[in-house]
Amino acid sequence: MSDKKIPYKIYLEESEMPKQWYNVRADMKKKPAPLLNPATKKPMTADELSHVFCDELVKQELNETDRYIDIPEEIQEFYKMYRPSPLVRAYCLEKKLDTPAKIYYKFEGNNTSGSHKLNSAIAQAYYAKKQGLKGVTTETGAGQWGTALSMACSYFDLDCKVYMVKCSYEQKPFRREVMRTYGADVTPSPSSTTEVGRKILAEFPDTNGSLGCAISEAVEAATSQEGYRYVLGSVLSQVLLHQSVIGMESKIAMDKYGIKPDIIIGCAGGGSNLGGLISPFMGEKLRGEKDYRFIAVEPASCPSLTRGVYVYDFCDTGKVCPLQKMYTLGSGFMPSANHAGGLRYHGMSSILSELYDEGLMEAVSAEQTSVFEAAQKFARVEGILPAPESSHAIKCAIDEAMKCKETGEEKTILFGLTGTGYFDMYAYGAYNDGNMSDYIPTDEELQKSFDTLPKVD
Amino acid sequence: MSDKKIPYKIYLEESEMPKQWYNVRADMKKKPAPLLNPATKKPMTADELSHVFCDELVKQELNETDRYIDIPEEIQEFYKMYRPSPLVRAYCLEKKLDTPAKIYYKFEGNNTSGSHKLNSAIAQAYYAKKQGLKGVTTETGAGQWGTALSMACSYFDLDCKVYMVKCSYEQKPFRREVMRTYGADVTPSPSSTTEVGRKILAEFPDTNGSLGCAISEAVEAATSQEGYRYVLGSVLSQVLLHQSVIGMESKIAMDKYGIKPDIIIGCAGGGSNLGGLISPFMGEKLRGEKDYRFIAVEPASCPSLTRGVYVYDFCDTGKVCPLQKMYTLGSGFMPSANHAGGLRYHGMSSILSELYDEGLMEAVSAEQTSVFEAAQKFARVEGILPAPESSHAIKCAIDEAMKCKETGEEKTILFGLTGTGYFDMYAYGAYNDGNMSDYIPTDEELQKSFDTLPKVD
Repeated sequence: MSDKKIPYKIYLEESEMPKQWYNVRADMKKKPAPLLNPATKKPMTADELSHVFCDELVKQELNETDRYIDIPEEIQEFYKMYRPSPLVRAYCLEKKLDTPAKIYYKFEGNNTSGSHKLNSAIAQAYYAKKQGLKGVTTETGAGQWGTALSMACSYFDLDCKVYMVKCSYEQKPFRREVMRTYGADVTPSPSSTTEVGRKILAEFPDTNGSLGCAISEAVEAATSQEGYRYVLGSVLSQVLLHQSVIGMESKIAMDKYGIKPDIIIGCAGGGSNLGGLISPFMGEKLRGEKDYRFIAVEPASCPSLTRGVYVYDFCDTGKVCPLQKMYTLGSGFMPSANHAGGLRYHGMSSILSELYDEGLMEAVSAEQTSVFEAAQKFARVEGILPAPESSHAIKCAIDEAMKCKETGEEKTILFGLTGTGYFDMYAYGAYNDGNMSDYIPTDEELQKSFDTLPKVD
Repeated sequence: MSDKKIPYKIYLEESEMPKQWYNVRADMKKKPAPLLNPATKKPMTADELSHVFCDELVKQELNETDRYIDIPEEIQEFYKMYRPSPLVRAYCLEKKLDTPAKIYYKFEGNNTSGSHKLNSAIAQAYYAKKQGLKGVTTETGAGQWGTALSMACSYFDLDCKVYMVKCSYEQKPFRREVMRTYGADVTPSPSSTTEVGRKILAEFPDTNGSLGCAISEAVEAATSQEGYRYVLGSVLSQVLLHQSVIGMESKIAMDKYGIKPDIIIGCAGGGSNLGGLISPFMGEKLRGEKDYRFIAVEPASCPSLTRGVYVYDFCDTGKVCPLQKMYTLGSGFMPSANHAGGLRYHGMSSILSELYDEGLMEAVSAEQTSVFEAAQKFARVEGILPAPESSHAIKCAIDEAMKCKETGEEKTILFGLTGTGYFDMYAYGAYNDGNMSDYIPTDEELQKSFDTLPKVD
């Protein structure tokens, strides 16, 4: 099909929307290493995991063999309220960059949570409700996941308790009100409401908080109350499974127009959006059907793939969660108050870690100021005001498009635009005022954190 | 076509999108009264208007005869970046209300300006650029129009100066940063940067500002600088013309599925979104082809249609603008710091005023707390977090749907959901905390304002 015929935005019809999630682990020859019980260092059983997570989600977490998993009717119905998300041809950005590259982005920000997080939130809330639970607890960084979960819980009439990373809580006061509007309780983390929170506060009284801390608190809050389970917005394989809806829709839309991306780019904090976006394409690569380049983009301030180590580590600062083998900076790593709150996580999805380790995916890091520069450039021509997290992918996509300009190659680039930056205006303000700082941890800081990694044979 | 087949969201294909705006004045037997020169009280000529407005926009303002006006290619291209906007079937709201009514809403919030305002902003910026101007000045209330114009000016590389109503400037600090990100200058109004601003400040030092004040300042800023013109986000007939794209898309989408709305509802500040939404349907009513009920919803705190008078008045507080015949509370009316900043205007579009006066359209007013109650109810089931302005329409749509529940009538309701509430979290916070106040001006207050109306024979 000729280029002329490709619209600015490709929307699927409801009938074309995916009815199944894609489980990339089914196509991985080497599976991600199993979660380990932190006490016994033995693989976590379904029974052990079910104290923390909903039963059905435990099954999904452990399922490495089924390539496709049906999306329940109720979730498909909810998806129809805000999906399909548009696949956008960035004609205006291409023109601005004067590049021969063809740039597409899958925009997940057109819902009130402001990001892709709702894709998994609604699934997790659904399974919690189906199990007859009273409510769920969780952590949130940038606030996108907390907002998404609040919306999902409100829809299914579930109680929702959110521990919000302190620096995001302070940088994004309005996020709290959105969550409250949807009926959630929001607590800044670390807090004195949990044992683990009090312990962290005693040790680091001035901490900005981290996703790792907030996870510990949310897990404690869930396991210490009857009828509650903990839900997580990224990192876990079940979350990547739900987020595969992003990649599935992208692939269906691109196939429909005969477009094959050469490079697929996503920002990476815990890895859920990147994993979801690339999954079905990675499946083709794993099965030897097609080849693609995949690039993960992380903040230079929290560079788990590019500077971390691939070992077993705790998913949380309080060390109450299972051990996961992943690229990590160490669960004790306290990232700077980087504005991309959603990317301030010390570790990485075990699936993406394994794919990266096998050389199936690349990774780069970007400094904050250059990310906002890309964000502003993008906003001014494409209209959308991107979230700082998403803007890491924009930065890399622009870099790749500029390489095409040098070489004259007409590569097709697809990137994930995970969300909007409406609640990031402090950060944009700092950038507008020229007051934005870049922070890169030193080798010594990282080594100090690596020294605290758990010993697993 | 059976109800089952109607998707949650109806998107038009690019090829189905309107290529012309619809000018409802062409079908009005009695035309809106002409704008008058405040000095001579004679109809403003195109030449006089062109000192304030761009030439092409003056032509559109004065055009009462052409039913359709072509949308320039460049504007059609820009529209494709964020349009068509979805026409949504509110299945979840219907279920929650347990009403036999069928509820649809046209959602204009899926762009960074957060509202329908971009539809006219891009048109006005385009014509300013085409005329070879350096830049434009404007006012903004809630900040939606200012954001939209900033985006449009950034796209066409035009300078953009925004006077923002002081109470909105304070309630919505992040709005400023969005506008700055798009390269605009933002000044809280009234300010000391203009003569009229200094005069208003001297008389009312504690004023919260109003759209009327901000308009005066922006007009002065435009007319006192070479290469600048003033642009306005509502009220004017040219703006309703551009906003007709909302109604045109709605009508094309509904016709495609064989849906005929019985009631069409929109919030009304200056009237641009309501006018744009209802225009093509009103055209059918005016031509005697079909019948519809139209309902304008305004805040009880600023009730120009329901409690105003239909006379010639100034469009601005500083009395520098032409006189317009409209429903008005008097240009000296200072509305309370109602959170629906976009509806805090003393007057109403001359087109809508005339249609209302002829009994072709109804109007109701709603108190703020009841509006936020409707907003929260809507948000929790439909996902979208609505702007306070838009929520006036939600409140009325819910009321009408509940009447259907009583009578058992299966009416079809269409309402305009003009934007999102991401920058209104102070107001949502006040509602969540139970601290929201309702304010209704007394008859004495209104009479005092009416006493200052200009005398026109």
